[in-house]
Amino acid sequence: MSRATVHDLLDRNEIAALQQWLAEHQPHEIADELGRTDELRAVLLFRLLGKDEALTVFEELDPPEQQKVLSGLRDQSFRDLVEAMDPDDRVRLLGESPAKFVHRVLIGLSPQERATTAALLGYPEGSVGRYMTPETVTLRQDLTASEALSRIHDRGTDAETVYTLLVVDDRRHFIGTVSLRDLVLASTEQPVSELTDPETLRVRADENAEDSARLMQDANLLDLPVVDSEDRVLGLLTIDDAVELIEAADSEDIARQAAASPWSGHYMSASVLQLARSRIVWLLLLIVAATLTVNVLQFFESTLEEVTTLALFVPLLIGTGGNAGAQAATASVRALAVGEVRTGDVLRVAWRECRVGLTLGVTLAVLGLGIGTVFVGVGVAATLAVSLIAVCGWAAMIGATMPLLAKRANIDPAVISTPLVTTLVDATGLIIYFMMARAFLGI
Amino acid sequence: MSRATVHDLLDRNEIAALQQWLAEHQPHEIADELGRTDELRAVLLFRLLGKDEALTVFEELDPPEQQKVLSGLRDQSFRDLVEAMDPDDRVRLLGESPAKFVHRVLIGLSPQERATTAALLGYPEGSVGRYMTPETVTLRQDLTASEALSRIHDRGTDAETVYTLLVVDDRRHFIGTVSLRDLVLASTEQPVSELTDPETLRVRADENAEDSARLMQDANLLDLPVVDSEDRVLGLLTIDDAVELIEAADSEDIARQAAASPWSGHYMSASVLQLARSRIVWLLLLIVAATLTVNVLQFFESTLEEVTTLALFVPLLIGTGGNAGAQAATASVRALAVGEVRTGDVLRVAWRECRVGLTLGVTLAVLGLGIGTVFVGVGVAATLAVSLIAVCGWAAMIGATMPLLAKRANIDPAVISTPLVTTLVDATGLIIYFMMARAFLGI
Repeated sequence: MSRATVHDLLDRNEIAALQQWLAEHQPHEIADELGRTDELRAVLLFRLLGKDEALTVFEELDPPEQQKVLSGLRDQSFRDLVEAMDPDDRVRLLGESPAKFVHRVLIGLSPQERATTAALLGYPEGSVGRYMTPETVTLRQDLTASEALSRIHDRGTDAETVYTLLVVDDRRHFIGTVSLRDLVLASTEQPVSELTDPETLRVRADENAEDSARLMQDANLLDLPVVDSEDRVLGLLTIDDAVELIEAADSEDIARQAAASPWSGHYMSASVLQLARSRIVWLLLLIVAATLTVNVLQFFESTLEEVTTLALFVPLLIGTGGNAGAQAATASVRALAVGEVRTGDVLRVAWRECRVGLTLGVTLAVLGLGIGTVFVGVGVAATLAVSLIAVCGWAAMIGATMPLLAKRANIDPAVISTPLVTTLVDATGLIIYFMMARAFLGI
Repeated sequence: MSRATVHDLLDRNEIAALQQWLAEHQPHEIADELGRTDELRAVLLFRLLGKDEALTVFEELDPPEQQKVLSGLRDQSFRDLVEAMDPDDRVRLLGESPAKFVHRVLIGLSPQERATTAALLGYPEGSVGRYMTPETVTLRQDLTASEALSRIHDRGTDAETVYTLLVVDDRRHFIGTVSLRDLVLASTEQPVSELTDPETLRVRADENAEDSARLMQDANLLDLPVVDSEDRVLGLLTIDDAVELIEAADSEDIARQAAASPWSGHYMSASVLQLARSRIVWLLLLIVAATLTVNVLQFFESTLEEVTTLALFVPLLIGTGGNAGAQAATASVRALAVGEVRTGDVLRVAWRECRVGLTLGVTLAVLGLGIGTVFVGVGVAATLAVSLIAVCGWAAMIGATMPLLAKRANIDPAVISTPLVTTLVDATGLIIYFMMARAFLGI
């Protein structure tokens, strides 16, 4: 049954058919459908779910959609859902919600869940503390494998994961981790201390969440222990949250690369104004930056009046320079994001990219010479060709180093987006072009 | 100790200091260092590792770097390493290696490992079969929880994961999965059949690997069962491989967005020529496409000669149009990648983005009118302002729908990169601008 049909069924209020559709689909498919529809229809559909299934589907939704569904529920269903959520998911939802909504959630919670939630909300935005689960199982070193397993059997029901167990001393200081795998594979009398990995990586709760997630990916960890400043165990960052963090960071980098503000909701449920708002600020900044090109062209207006054919190649030249700069900027931003490049590499990167740009420029210049000669003749064509070489070398060097310099200045390197690089390269490219023209054509 | 120092230590052959450096760093940090250096130094450093640590570090490397290290090793160490690799990692390495290298690996393997590897290599590139682990533990339904645990205890050592157990009938047909968590939390006599999740998702081995990885992310799975066409169990796709698949796909999309070919190696170890090669094809295509702008300008050359000041705003206008188009294209490509938009949404998307573009255009036109009036006067300024509105509406609509149309035609939507959109918008934007100029200025 197609999406349109679900929409129609909702509008025609065909309950039986909708229930059949729900029964035939996986929770994540139902969640996707909820994400695509407006608040009214989403709540209608959601109310048709059984209690257990409702929770499963609800957990698959992104925070803006969770808020959408919750806002349409009556108090009892509302309270049941927020009470049943994992604390880390609840904190993520609250972090993106207006104060009034946060209040409604908090007063609806049991005292215990409210205390846990308040503690997690105390960590700064974007820190691991906001994403970790405090519901873990801790073990003492002096247990045997079988004692540990029976402790997990008794205590594990409430834990978000039992695959990584935190080994602690009597004051909850972190000693290491042991995996459920090792406990199950060990002989029953083997002490936990022998199975503990003492070199286990861990992060402090106030450290950056995205960095922690990428660390998990680099080190192939299922769970990453989170500790406080005195190395006492607070919880675990689990792989499913790490994947979401990495994906959200990638989405943000991708949006930034095109000079749009990141937007955490579902694309299809965003309104025209929401989309426009996420894009307009950068466009305004860029159009202001682009007045630089007007200045440059005005400065060379006499040259332009003398040889109008020079204008023919302006879009081609600055387009190519922008593309070469964009390629280098993208490579550099990505290499920084995945940790392949460090800020200390800036000179090495600049030198390499400059050579890459010149290599590309020389190749393109051959083609440019041909195109230019066909359209207007060899003089302007030579100007174009030499400009292409210079512009490509310059664009690649600037494009690759700007993100590194941004990172050094503690600015998100992804802010040095393709359009920003392009706009800067446009202005400098024009200066190079007209200087070459004056030299070559003797104007 | 900084990276430069490791480099220097290697060049000065200071073994003791290097060994100390290795002892003080985590496997993934050592792997990163190996990725950054050339083959000669990488092998030197790698040989200093103890046998167990060498394997751990080796498993953290990307395929091109694994190949780099292996190529420098003598036969015995070479064979030990490839024999010890997980089958799925080995297959990934071989998939990206030249035939001669593949041959050297295969003849070095034990008959059993060679058979496993050959079987996995039989699946098409990019399919789940290439990424799954065949080393899993299967369970029969009639076991009790404690019998199942003791089977895992006996058989689990060789399995890549024991957190998801595959429940099968006597002919290995898939029945469902049971998690180690549920087995540990269950009472000892509870039958596996009661703990089995019958609705478990699964994929066929020849299905797309990236789609399967995103399915795992959507459904929050640690492991995804892989079956053959007759629903017999073949293996599991584990979350660490899914994360790598998603990250590789994101890197590829990001590279494509800037019109560069994806490159799977470490950025810092890529040579100038390798980088240039990954970028030149698109630049050549784009410069050919950009001759369209030369054509357009030549067509309007008389207009341009009459009012040279029109040329002043060409970079600003086409730059802004390109940016608006790039924002829409990026949003559309990303929404497709994460499954928020389907190809059937093309008309809905076109209509929304057109309105978004017009909204942006009107806002920018106000600024454009101001800039234009300051520089040259109200006539050209009005031309610019009206052109901005039209160009933004058009660019956003084209930018968002082209990726959807590409996907419909079975082309990777990320190929509709920002630069391609920009180049097309450049040409059409110029036509709009000069038509407006003729109308407004009465040329």
